[in-house]
Amino acid sequence: MKALIDRIKREKGKILIFTHENPDADGIGSMLALYEFLKNEGKDVECAMKDPAPAILDFLPNIDKIKKLPNEKTYDLAILVDAAGAFRAGTKINAKEIIRIDHHIGGNKESNYDFIDTYAPSTTFLVAKILRYWNEEKINSNIATNLYTGLLTDTGSFRYNNVDDEAFEMAEFLVKKGADPTYIANMIYERNKLSTIKLLQLTLSTLKLYAEGKIASLIVERKYLHETGALEEETEGFVNYARSIDGVEIAFIMIQKEDPDLWRVSIRGKGNIDVREIAEYFGGGGHRDAAGCRIRGKKEEVLNKLVERAKQQLEKELNISYSTI
Amino acid sequence: MKALIDRIKREKGKILIFTHENPDADGIGSMLALYEFLKNEGKDVECAMKDPAPAILDFLPNIDKIKKLPNEKTYDLAILVDAAGAFRAGTKINAKEIIRIDHHIGGNKESNYDFIDTYAPSTTFLVAKILRYWNEEKINSNIATNLYTGLLTDTGSFRYNNVDDEAFEMAEFLVKKGADPTYIANMIYERNKLSTIKLLQLTLSTLKLYAEGKIASLIVERKYLHETGALEEETEGFVNYARSIDGVEIAFIMIQKEDPDLWRVSIRGKGNIDVREIAEYFGGGGHRDAAGCRIRGKKEEVLNKLVERAKQQLEKELNISYSTI
Repeated sequence: MKALIDRIKREKGKILIFTHENPDADGIGSMLALYEFLKNEGKDVECAMKDPAPAILDFLPNIDKIKKLPNEKTYDLAILVDAAGAFRAGTKINAKEIIRIDHHIGGNKESNYDFIDTYAPSTTFLVAKILRYWNEEKINSNIATNLYTGLLTDTGSFRYNNVDDEAFEMAEFLVKKGADPTYIANMIYERNKLSTIKLLQLTLSTLKLYAEGKIASLIVERKYLHETGALEEETEGFVNYARSIDGVEIAFIMIQKEDPDLWRVSIRGKGNIDVREIAEYFGGGGHRDAAGCRIRGKKEEVLNKLVERAKQQLEKELNISYSTI
Repeated sequence: MKALIDRIKREKGKILIFTHENPDADGIGSMLALYEFLKNEGKDVECAMKDPAPAILDFLPNIDKIKKLPNEKTYDLAILVDAAGAFRAGTKINAKEIIRIDHHIGGNKESNYDFIDTYAPSTTFLVAKILRYWNEEKINSNIATNLYTGLLTDTGSFRYNNVDDEAFEMAEFLVKKGADPTYIANMIYERNKLSTIKLLQLTLSTLKLYAEGKIASLIVERKYLHETGALEEETEGFVNYARSIDGVEIAFIMIQKEDPDLWRVSIRGKGNIDVREIAEYFGGGGHRDAAGCRIRGKKEEVLNKLVERAKQQLEKELNISYSTI
């Protein structure tokens, strides 16, 4: 960690902090925490990304400071947070050197200063470790709020299998530094739109189980968005209702795109089945427990393909035959 | 705390640990943690309660050791956990002395050894403090699991306004002592029944807003339970979907009892409105943010009464008139 900090300290030129396209709270929180800390250290620093921030993150300190990519600038140093490689920015970055700070499995090596810990609960956890090592005194409540938000969301409110005693130690530290856990949880989880609840109700009405209850499906047709006035981003997390059912090992949600024959699919597992292999079969990717892909076709056709491929995965990993189910 | 521990240490006779009727994870977790600790200290200890434990808590270590109240025994010492007074047991207790360990506001003083801290996130947090002071070494993974479960559930997975740095410090400690946060979260949150999701879908279809979106209602008719095969206890937490909507200050759910003209009502607030006053108006009670009552009447009649009383509370606390809405 010292070498990484020394490298950033040495930089007298222009620094960019950036994250992946379709950014989430962990990417944005990491970016904004690092941004304010480096700014306070007197660095010539900017943060930028390709897509706008989700509306739900409007409360994050300094969210209005994020600039838009691509831009024409050349940076002396770029710090990529929460992404498997600079390619994940979804646009070109002009930088003499890139450092990657991330907790995803695999991905690119960007430089000798990369800081990758795949056991970390969030990228903000890693940024927090760096900043505590650098100068704990300079972590203010803005920075703590950004860091805590990524920790909260990437652990599913301290429920996922990336939570350990160190995650709680970090949460304690960040609360002591001024992060307000109730305020942040309210901002993230208690500002649903009426349209989201209506869309959830329609989506839950599509719930189906297969393979003796080990597979669960949900479908969001485009017309549901029109009926409820909801945006596609409001489907975030819906797949977890299918996943949460006792006995379900593979849950997926099919979301119809503007092109009615194109479906965005999110697949979730509970640790027993590698759902990434299912996503990869359809040209997608992700993690063992959370993966995604896009599939072309009519609704029933896509649904059947997914269920069949999911059954194959169950057969392969649980050594049971579902061919007759 | 020392006096309390010394009092328990002194006791050579029969000890009962008990909690409130319709028990929850915090009451049961507190009871079981204290039970195993005192048993390991060589005490003649039992734990008992009036109602059976919710099925979802079947994973708690020693859950099968809980006995049923009432019984004919006389105890030398009874320790009441997570309840505002021995009356909350819902049945008679024969004990020479009762000690109360609790985090609820108000309630009875049972003895000079009571340990009440209304700022504690959970009663298991208080039991954990006692056991750490008593002998930290003797907190094993069974005890830690029971204590962590109460902390998790009573803070709504570290989201409610009772969470602070000390809650996270305690979570870290309990994880170090063997509580598995992912396993426990999965047991609590990832074992939904299919019937629960179906019931949720029907319940969400009843969502209505009033008073410019500041009041939200949900209704569970008895026939929904019959249609889905769900039990009434599966409605637990449903009211939070109404509460989670941006702008909602008062959310309530009406659950029809077997007697079709009797409704159990749960009311939730977001800190700005004292919903307990609404519940008290109808003869119920609770906390500022979470209260309940029972109301007799036809569906529309009860709904209208609740909405009108909720509007009055808004008018009183926000100084706005909703009489014309």
